Amino acid sequence: MASIRVPPGIRLFDKIADFRAWRRQILLNGQSLGYVPTMGALHQGHLALVTAAKQQCDQVALTIFVNPAQFAPTEDLSSYPRTLQSDLDKLAITAPQAAVLVPQVAEMYPGGIELDVNKQKGAFVEVKGLSHQLEGITRPHFFRGVATVVTKFLNIVQPDHVYFGQKDVQQCMVLRRMIRDLHFGIKMNVCPTVREQDGLAMSSRNVYLSPSQRQHALVLYRALMLMQNMYDNTTKHAPTLVAAATDYINKAAQKVADSGEDWEMKLDYISINAPDDLSEITGDINSGCIISGAVFVGKTRLIDNLIIDVDF
Amino acid sequence: MASIRVPPGIRLFDKIADFRAWRRQILLNGQSLGYVPTMGALHQGHLALVTAAKQQCDQVALTIFVNPAQFAPTEDLSSYPRTLQSDLDKLAITAPQAAVLVPQVAEMYPGGIELDVNKQKGAFVEVKGLSHQLEGITRPHFFRGVATVVTKFLNIVQPDHVYFGQKDVQQCMVLRRMIRDLHFGIKMNVCPTVREQDGLAMSSRNVYLSPSQRQHALVLYRALMLMQNMYDNTTKHAPTLVAAATDYINKAAQKVADSGEDWEMKLDYISINAPDDLSEITGDINSGCIISGAVFVGKTRLIDNLIIDVDF
Repeated sequence: MASIRVPPGIRLFDKIADFRAWRRQILLNGQSLGYVPTMGALHQGHLALVTAAKQQCDQVALTIFVNPAQFAPTEDLSSYPRTLQSDLDKLAITAPQAAVLVPQVAEMYPGGIELDVNKQKGAFVEVKGLSHQLEGITRPHFFRGVATVVTKFLNIVQPDHVYFGQKDVQQCMVLRRMIRDLHFGIKMNVCPTVREQDGLAMSSRNVYLSPSQRQHALVLYRALMLMQNMYDNTTKHAPTLVAAATDYINKAAQKVADSGEDWEMKLDYISINAPDDLSEITGDINSGCIISGAVFVGKTRLIDNLIIDVDF
Repeated sequence: MASIRVPPGIRLFDKIADFRAWRRQILLNGQSLGYVPTMGALHQGHLALVTAAKQQCDQVALTIFVNPAQFAPTEDLSSYPRTLQSDLDKLAITAPQAAVLVPQVAEMYPGGIELDVNKQKGAFVEVKGLSHQLEGITRPHFFRGVATVVTKFLNIVQPDHVYFGQKDVQQCMVLRRMIRDLHFGIKMNVCPTVREQDGLAMSSRNVYLSPSQRQHALVLYRALMLMQNMYDNTTKHAPTLVAAATDYINKAAQKVADSGEDWEMKLDYISINAPDDLSEITGDINSGCIISGAVFVGKTRLIDNLIIDVDF
C-alpha cells in the first residue's frame, strides 16, 4: 500500500495483529465499536452503513476485502473493482476517525484458498436451510464463502454492532441466523437499500454497466414495484404477482433484443418468499413476504428486493 | 439444577448471559482466562487440562455440555454419563475458584437441533480435509458437530487459552486448524493423554465396560505400544506395523470369542498418518507420524493414539 495517501484521522491497517491491538484499546477504553464489512468500491450504500454505525457506536471500523471464497471460478473475482484510494477518501468525509483493515488474502486464508469448492480445505461455515434457494441456486457456494469470511472478520473485529444492507437480503438472513446460532454476541443491523435517483439499487457492480445497459438496468426495480402495486391494490396471490413481473421483464428483454443491442437482458429469477425461512410462497401472501429477483443486464447480474408487511 | 450443591468458590452458570457478564469482568480486571470444554463425566484427563489452565491463566472456566450435534442417531447420546454433582465436587478440589457453564440444549441451539444431519438447519462449521478420515469414517458428521459446538463456546467464553487432550488427536487437529483459519485469536494447548495405572486411556466411556471387558480393554494400547516398539527397533515401514497391530488385535478378539464371553471384541481401524494433514502413510515413516486406532469392546468404542517423533 506504498502509493496510498491515508487521509488524516483514518487509521489504516494491513496486518490483523495491528488491527487487533487498536481494537483492544477501544475495549479497554470502554468504548463501543460498530463494524461495516465491505469488499471496497464504496458507494452511498456502504456510507449509509457507516453513518448508522457512527450514530450508534463510539468507534467505527471497516474491512475492505474482496473475498475469493464467495466467487465461483466463472465469476468476476479478478475484475471486481478495487479502488482503495477513493474508498478512503470517501470514508474520510463520512467518518474521519474510522479504522480500516485491508488484509491480504494469504493472511485471511492461512491455509490458502481454492476457488474450486471441491478442492477447498480448512474451516468453513455454512448456514443450512437459508443458503440453497434464490441466490443460492445460481451461486451454490456463495453463502458458504460469505458466512466463512464474515466469521473470520467478526472474530478479528469483535464489534458490538455489525451493519449490512437490505439489498443483499438473503445474505442478511444467512448472517443473522449465523450470528445467533454461533453465539457471536453481536447486534446485527440491517439498513435500507440506498438507490440512485431513478431507483436503481446502488451496487459496486453497477460500474460494469455500459450507458445503454444502465438505461435498461431499472427493469428489475420496476418489476418489483409492479408487484408491490398489485399486492397493495389488486391481489395477494403470489404466483400471479410473479407471473406479472416475469412477463414484464421478458418483454423488456425482447425489446432490447429487437433494438439490435450487442448485449442481452435475461431474467434469472423472481420469487416471493416467507420472511422467516425463505420458503417459497405458492398461494396468498398472508403475513408479509420478501420479493426478490435477479436479472442479467449484459454480463452484469443485478439483484434487488422489497420486504413487504413485515418487520425485518 | 435445584438439587445440585455448588461447592463454595465454584461459580456455576446455567444461562449464557450470566456467564458472559462474569467473563466480561475478568477481561476488565485485566486477567487471562483458560478454558476447558467438556461433556462432563470428568476424569483425571479433564482435571489435567484444568490444572494446565490454572498454571497458565489467572482464571479457569469449564463448560459441561453433552453436544447432540456430534452424536449420530445410532450413538449413545441418551446414555452418555451425566454426573454434574460429582463433576463439581472433583473440580472444586483441582480448581476451587473455577467458573462452570452448564447450558441447556435449547439455548446452545436456538433453532433446535436434529440428530439426522440431513434435517439439520442453521449454522455449522466444518474443517474440510481433516474430518473425513480415521474417526470420520465411522462417524462421518462427528467433527462437524464438534467444530460447531466449539465455535459456539469459543464465542461465548472468549478465552485466551483453550485446552484439549491428546487422546482425541484428530479432534485436536481439526480444532487447531479451525482456530487458525477462523482467526479466533486463541492459543490452543494439547495436553498428553492421561492413563489408568495399567495404561488404558482415560475416557468417560470407560464406565460402560463390564469387569470382563475392562480386563480386555487394554488391547488397543498394547497394539499401539507394539507398533512403537517395532518402529524403534525393527522397521519404519508403516504397512508392516499396521499389519502386526491388526493381527494382534484380531487374535485377542478371537480369544474373547473362544472364551465364551457374551460380548465381542472388534477392530474398527488401525492407521498411521502424517501429522500435518492426516494423509495415510503407505511407505516408510520418514518424518514422524500419528498412530491411531479404534476398537469395539462389546458395544463400547475405545480410541487411542501415539504421536511419534514429531512436535505436536
